[in-house]
Amino acid sequence: MSDDNANETTELTRRGFLQVAGGSLLAAQVPQLNVPPALGKKLGWALVGLGNLAIFQVLPAFAKSEKSKLVAFVSGRPDKAKQLAARYGVADKNIYNYENFDTIANNPEIDVVYIILPNNMHAEYTIRALKAGKHVLCEKPMANTPEDCEKMIAAAKAANKKLAIGYRCRHEPYNQAMIKMARDQEMGPTRFILADAGFNISLIMGSGKEKQWRLVKKMAGGGSLMDIGVYSLNAARYLTGEEPTEVYAMISTTPNDPRFSEVEENITFQLRFPSGILANCTSSYGGPLSRFRVVGTKGAFEIEPAQGYSGQHMRLLRGNNIEHRDFPTRDHFALEMDSVSESVISNTEPLTPGEEGLKDLRIMMAIYESARTGRPVKLA
Amino acid sequence: MSDDNANETTELTRRGFLQVAGGSLLAAQVPQLNVPPALGKKLGWALVGLGNLAIFQVLPAFAKSEKSKLVAFVSGRPDKAKQLAARYGVADKNIYNYENFDTIANNPEIDVVYIILPNNMHAEYTIRALKAGKHVLCEKPMANTPEDCEKMIAAAKAANKKLAIGYRCRHEPYNQAMIKMARDQEMGPTRFILADAGFNISLIMGSGKEKQWRLVKKMAGGGSLMDIGVYSLNAARYLTGEEPTEVYAMISTTPNDPRFSEVEENITFQLRFPSGILANCTSSYGGPLSRFRVVGTKGAFEIEPAQGYSGQHMRLLRGNNIEHRDFPTRDHFALEMDSVSESVISNTEPLTPGEEGLKDLRIMMAIYESARTGRPVKLA
Repeated sequence: MSDDNANETTELTRRGFLQVAGGSLLAAQVPQLNVPPALGKKLGWALVGLGNLAIFQVLPAFAKSEKSKLVAFVSGRPDKAKQLAARYGVADKNIYNYENFDTIANNPEIDVVYIILPNNMHAEYTIRALKAGKHVLCEKPMANTPEDCEKMIAAAKAANKKLAIGYRCRHEPYNQAMIKMARDQEMGPTRFILADAGFNISLIMGSGKEKQWRLVKKMAGGGSLMDIGVYSLNAARYLTGEEPTEVYAMISTTPNDPRFSEVEENITFQLRFPSGILANCTSSYGGPLSRFRVVGTKGAFEIEPAQGYSGQHMRLLRGNNIEHRDFPTRDHFALEMDSVSESVISNTEPLTPGEEGLKDLRIMMAIYESARTGRPVKLA
Repeated sequence: MSDDNANETTELTRRGFLQVAGGSLLAAQVPQLNVPPALGKKLGWALVGLGNLAIFQVLPAFAKSEKSKLVAFVSGRPDKAKQLAARYGVADKNIYNYENFDTIANNPEIDVVYIILPNNMHAEYTIRALKAGKHVLCEKPMANTPEDCEKMIAAAKAANKKLAIGYRCRHEPYNQAMIKMARDQEMGPTRFILADAGFNISLIMGSGKEKQWRLVKKMAGGGSLMDIGVYSLNAARYLTGEEPTEVYAMISTTPNDPRFSEVEENITFQLRFPSGILANCTSSYGGPLSRFRVVGTKGAFEIEPAQGYSGQHMRLLRGNNIEHRDFPTRDHFALEMDSVSESVISNTEPLTPGEEGLKDLRIMMAIYESARTGRPVKLA
């Protein structure tokens, strides 16, 4: 091969294989996938809690993860754990229960523990996982009280491990694009954030016979605000990039509805931000709501549905003109888990660290206080 | 003609002309218009105030009116009035100014007076028109204070004339459909009303040199709430069919913006209704907002733009499914004026009587009080 030929080959390689192959059968059969440049290590994940979210969302997401693999279960239901272990290739020895949970410390396959338990169990299992030397991703809301959040953060510091909170929306392309568009003032400086989150909740989940835990105050810590309204709150914060200085809230709960004997159904809350932006937020267990809108001086942009596991769509509104904008469809949970794995691998701060969860908990307590007292609450 | 033939003709007439004409050339050339069954009397209207709204919206609307015709102008600018009179065929003798305004009493051509003046002039000219024995349509907001509204209502009663307020949206097909859908609980019982209204206001209007009157507190009575937020408030009331019991509001105004040296820019306000419905409303002179949404237990429906003079569109949201619904395009001002004319002709209550305007003014005063005191305000 002459030098000229070598140069030509190099040049062709630069221009890419598919161009060289031209119209050949092989090239036509190769889908034009974006293969990541290097497939590095996958971290080992243990799921704690095998409820609907784990079974129907998180477990299938591992198939789409680049940096996270399923290696262990922690469950109080050995039958369910064995069945799922068989399906997902989890070794028998890696099935733990709540009694022997702390022995995960001796299992080097487990790098990260994902806490998918009722809210009132988040603090205990997060702290135990950290003490066992594991990194933690804990579902939102972080805990039922700011005090528990502070203990969780302290435990992560003491263990020198990562603690991330499951703010899934922060990791998916639509919400990420929206944050950038707001920062870039694509519609001018922001004047309002409108953030709505809600669904019509079932008294009983799936084949269960008891009231689902989200409706039990001791477990859930509250009603729609703790579970779904936290999305509205978190979005108002990340879409402004500011911390609110004042909140006012109204609660309305349908009387005699057996679902709401302990927890609230509907809340509206208003937040004032230092730059002057006002946020008008809703939270509901009574009706479907899933929309984040940023209103600037020149127009608005919104995602709807905003918090669903899929189906996001963005609209940009300028006068009577509506522009549609869409982004690649990605598995939110895979993105979230990979983001946590990456923060462990690169030893960087998680995108949604424990401090984020604590901030939301403090504001949620102020929202409840405002609704209870009928007074606005100033935030530090 | 035999009896049989007569019967056949009657039957055919019942089935309509176009069916009889069948496939003939004549039928193909006749557009299938819905001709109103009887073209009755048109009432004579006088416009008071020849600003942008009158010139660009109201005057062209007479061409589409079925029951309202333009017969007179009242203006402080004789040159402008003469120019428009020539264009719209208004007789010279029917051009009035603010000094000889009361002599409209002697002009039997004028049945209804449409007040399109700055807010602080509404009460005076409405009362003078009523005293002159004319019916009145007064633009929203009805006045700058509830006291003025009460005087206007009393004047209408004393004169035994109709007094209607220019809540244009109530007369157009989209908002009317939305009210019916909410009453029919098409998406289940309502849980939330989200009502947003705003635009980015200009310091100076058109070719003017001074700050526009909407930004002068003495004339406008307030800022965005008086002018555009009143749409959000009115919609929250007509979409629930209830009167709010409690309101809380936050104001945010960009500092050092020359537009807002006297009046507020942005307001959010929350309303609680007796049935438990919460309304989350916005009002803005800083950014574009025009959306009414009704959130029920099963889904939501919304109009956007909601308050524009045209371009309305309705979307129904059930889960991730979006259904689009549209209605005939109609001129809002023609519908509104004809509705007032009809209430005069049939001697019935106007769809949006003075009492509606008074209710909104009282609530707007409570909204301002809440924003000023930082406390929720209970409504009687």
